[in-house]
Amino acid sequence: MKEHKQIANILVDRGLAQFGDALLNFAFSIVLTKIHGSPRGTKIPDKVLADAAVKAGLRKLLPTRVGRGDVANGFEALMAHVWLEKRLTLDEIVDCLNSENIDASQNFVQLAELALDKLRN
Amino acid sequence: MKEHKQIANILVDRGLAQFGDALLNFAFSIVLTKIHGSPRGTKIPDKVLADAAVKAGLRKLLPTRVGRGDVANGFEALMAHVWLEKRLTLDEIVDCLNSENIDASQNFVQLAELALDKLRN
Repeated sequence: MKEHKQIANILVDRGLAQFGDALLNFAFSIVLTKIHGSPRGTKIPDKVLADAAVKAGLRKLLPTRVGRGDVANGFEALMAHVWLEKRLTLDEIVDCLNSENIDASQNFVQLAELALDKLRN
Repeated sequence: MKEHKQIANILVDRGLAQFGDALLNFAFSIVLTKIHGSPRGTKIPDKVLADAAVKAGLRKLLPTRVGRGDVANGFEALMAHVWLEKRLTLDEIVDCLNSENIDASQNFVQLAELALDKLRN
């Protein structure tokens, strides 16, 4: 079980956020390619990541008074950490983002929740 | 063995280029993270990709009069194709980009050559 301080240090790590950005864009490009049946690539908007992270409760693990960009970075850092620590595989991330939710943005919330669970335990 | 026309169609595919962009940025982020021993992420500059693609002979497979951006896109599309067709794995791409060359840009040339070889045969 990680301490609050340890978790906060992970979520504000700039290098982890950069790595997580690349990881999430690749994972979501795989998802879009599966859905459309032809290759696509994308950059996930910060707003999508930030909204999902807030709904998953990630904001309260961050320092107070952070902006939307910092929340998105926190989500990216979280994903990088759990992937690098082998607590979630690329396939698991893709499967989570490819769930059949009516609201596709809900998949990002589920992913954030899943990753937070892996981070905490 | 693929025909010249088939290869050209792959290399100019916009969706493949977008997918390849995400794939290469993720693969190179893994490489940087290994090299530095701490997480990093990056967006590989088009110039790096275009220069490597030209050296590997990719330009002559593209339509004439294409710019640097198109050559970089061709390299990205090539990588997406060979990865999606399971002719190169992510680990193989990472290993190739993590070779111990004196000139790091040479690793991108080697990757383009390797992928072209997989594409052709």
